[in-house]
Amino acid sequence: MGASSEPLAIDAKNTIHADVAVIGGGVIGHGIAWEAKRSGRSVVVIDDAPGSGASWAAAGMLAPVSELHYQEEDLLEFMLDASARWPAFAAGLTEASGTDPGYITTPTLAVGADAADRRALMDLRSVQQASGLSVEPLTVRGARQREPLLSPGIACALDTPADHQVDPRLLVACLQAALAQGTDDGGGNRDKGAGRGTAAAGVVGGFAVAARATGLLWRGGAVAGVRLADGGTVLAAETVVANGLHAAALEGLPPGLNLPLRPVHGDILRLAVPRHLQPLVTSTVRGLVRGVPVYIVPRRDGTVVIGATQREDALSGTDAVSAGGVYQLLRDAQVLVPAVAELELLEFTARARPATPDNAPLLGRVPAPLAAADGEHGYLSGLIIATGFFRHGVLLTPAAAAVCRDLFDGREDPRWAVFSPGRFSPRAGARLTTGSPTNHFRHTSPTKETA
Amino acid sequence: MGASSEPLAIDAKNTIHADVAVIGGGVIGHGIAWEAKRSGRSVVVIDDAPGSGASWAAAGMLAPVSELHYQEEDLLEFMLDASARWPAFAAGLTEASGTDPGYITTPTLAVGADAADRRALMDLRSVQQASGLSVEPLTVRGARQREPLLSPGIACALDTPADHQVDPRLLVACLQAALAQGTDDGGGNRDKGAGRGTAAAGVVGGFAVAARATGLLWRGGAVAGVRLADGGTVLAAETVVANGLHAAALEGLPPGLNLPLRPVHGDILRLAVPRHLQPLVTSTVRGLVRGVPVYIVPRRDGTVVIGATQREDALSGTDAVSAGGVYQLLRDAQVLVPAVAELELLEFTARARPATPDNAPLLGRVPAPLAAADGEHGYLSGLIIATGFFRHGVLLTPAAAAVCRDLFDGREDPRWAVFSPGRFSPRAGARLTTGSPTNHFRHTSPTKETA
Repeated sequence: MGASSEPLAIDAKNTIHADVAVIGGGVIGHGIAWEAKRSGRSVVVIDDAPGSGASWAAAGMLAPVSELHYQEEDLLEFMLDASARWPAFAAGLTEASGTDPGYITTPTLAVGADAADRRALMDLRSVQQASGLSVEPLTVRGARQREPLLSPGIACALDTPADHQVDPRLLVACLQAALAQGTDDGGGNRDKGAGRGTAAAGVVGGFAVAARATGLLWRGGAVAGVRLADGGTVLAAETVVANGLHAAALEGLPPGLNLPLRPVHGDILRLAVPRHLQPLVTSTVRGLVRGVPVYIVPRRDGTVVIGATQREDALSGTDAVSAGGVYQLLRDAQVLVPAVAELELLEFTARARPATPDNAPLLGRVPAPLAAADGEHGYLSGLIIATGFFRHGVLLTPAAAAVCRDLFDGREDPRWAVFSPGRFSPRAGARLTTGSPTNHFRHTSPTKETA
Repeated sequence: MGASSEPLAIDAKNTIHADVAVIGGGVIGHGIAWEAKRSGRSVVVIDDAPGSGASWAAAGMLAPVSELHYQEEDLLEFMLDASARWPAFAAGLTEASGTDPGYITTPTLAVGADAADRRALMDLRSVQQASGLSVEPLTVRGARQREPLLSPGIACALDTPADHQVDPRLLVACLQAALAQGTDDGGGNRDKGAGRGTAAAGVVGGFAVAARATGLLWRGGAVAGVRLADGGTVLAAETVVANGLHAAALEGLPPGLNLPLRPVHGDILRLAVPRHLQPLVTSTVRGLVRGVPVYIVPRRDGTVVIGATQREDALSGTDAVSAGGVYQLLRDAQVLVPAVAELELLEFTARARPATPDNAPLLGRVPAPLAAADGEHGYLSGLIIATGFFRHGVLLTPAAAAVCRDLFDGREDPRWAVFSPGRFSPRAGARLTTGSPTNHFRHTSPTKETA
């Protein structure tokens, strides 16, 4: 399917009609929505506080190499795919939005604080090298020539030129601007049918804000759209569930579908570098300090981001910042770059990231055994799940968007079938064990969707 | 002078008439204003951001005993006088405002982290005892029976029952409410002449906000009021300069008057105690951790305040928070109470406190040699200085207010003459050296003011 059959419109019953409804306005949801729009589809993003979830706290490291973890080879492949998409994604977004998402290709330095940290980083390097990734040891002297404010006491430094960064807050703003382009312009644009409805306050053009999704809407055994908290509805050929941790709480999820999302809280700091210390660092510095990761990400505006803890404890609320977490970040960042003590603390933020049991996303259509109908195609019609991106949401945004666009078009890249959102659901598992899960997914005909 | 001759009013020329004009809406300014109002005077507080300066960051410890420093006996006497005034001041304020300033008489525990800290606290105790102050050593076991979350690793704990606390933000709000009482009530109150003027936006009753003072207004060799940034003026029999660090920047200060105020920045944290850790502590815990002071002040609402650094370095702005300062506070607070790591960080704040070369306030009238007129009384008419309260502004508020009320009434307590605002001014110094400064002040007749 190349062109849309459904111009965005709101009818008299406060029902919004669109080709694609995206529940969740973080980086993932916005990225998918923009990709849908670029493919000629009308799209609505549904979120009562877009950009304020995990995306708001994210540091924006695009770091497939540094983020490699043992036994996560599938995820590595997906991260490398995403990384390769970033230059064109950022360029297209800058052109479409007229603004800059802060995409920078400065390298990353992996730094170990002591001998044990050095061993851990060198062990990881052998896995990185086995995967064909470039990670080159520097002498401490060499590292400090590049980054004079690095502590002379560090145990090792490794150059990781392929790991870059983007500013997630700017990214969401850019995606919002790109989604708003060409809407409400009265110039015969195909989105011009859209308007502001009582039911979905804040819907403008192909892009909605300030609406909260309560659940999925079903018609004839397929998902047909979204119910809104204010009583309105969105009717869409494709509904994408991209609201992070809140996905599992939606009403009307396919029976038997288990979305085992758990919150992993992260504290993050933003600091201003006084003029006499600028630039504090030119590379992103990713440290291992007595086994605990910490990173310092320099922004173009003279600020740095220091992050991030990973806490599975909950304080009073999901956005509560841990005093111990802030202490640990400041302590460990100073081990790597002592001048951190001289910075101005601007902000502390905590958000919960949606993690899964295998640290990989829940991305794709839902296998039909979990649903009542459309079993002939192997998948439930009208629904795509895109959550569980844990620490990788920003990096994976272009790849998740590409996956969804393929699914909209009736295609499927078999490499990403391992991320099936049904993989933790017993009824799906029963079916999958009759053959190799990979083969099952690779040989199933994708659903041909008509919007 | 017991009653006012000047009902508060604004004339056609955007001039406000009041008995007392107070420049500066922190705890000191508001405290003096309320005392003036209680004495039957009309009063205007001039501040474009009341309560947002050093008062906003203050922890509110009322701690004359713990705050004793070597060689500051005059200041100790003044702090003890202030401490003795607090119960009646708080009670009167609660009655007048109908709200609670958070005045609590829970004791303070002085805690030393290591052997050197213990020696320092025990040495200080001998001075405190010589001054008749009660500071009683506890065993570590005894201290932990009182405060179970104290670290077992502390070196000593001393009970300081006379050191209490108030909540400075509530205090400012209470003082504002007390000042607003009886105004704009249309009930024949003597303040009813007041109204809202174009020149001084936000003047309500006897209490003004959102106006900025640019300088003093002189008439016939005496100070007669205040010039406002918007072109308006306040005419007052008495003008009190209580705007902290900004005092020295006022235009029209008496020639030769040197107000040697310097900013001492302080970082302070506010944290929420999770339910299972409440109360974190019941006493205020004042620690010395490897020679550096840190305190934990428990509030009734389940939060604690941790402070405060003392930095004479400036970051990018006067309210910039130091990353190193926050780190130090969290580190040292955890040495005393390890569970601090489990708290939720709610807020970090930094403000600059107005310090003087001898750490004592600049409080009183300005000696006449510095001014052109009114030398017969020994003081310049119409002007009182009340700044330089450094770390003691909240504690000293009732005492500073009492000093000002005495000055309004033509009286002077000779004990506080040592805080003369002229003591750092060479021209005043020249005169003062002809006799004992103390005697000079004690034998000079106070100016009899008529408003």
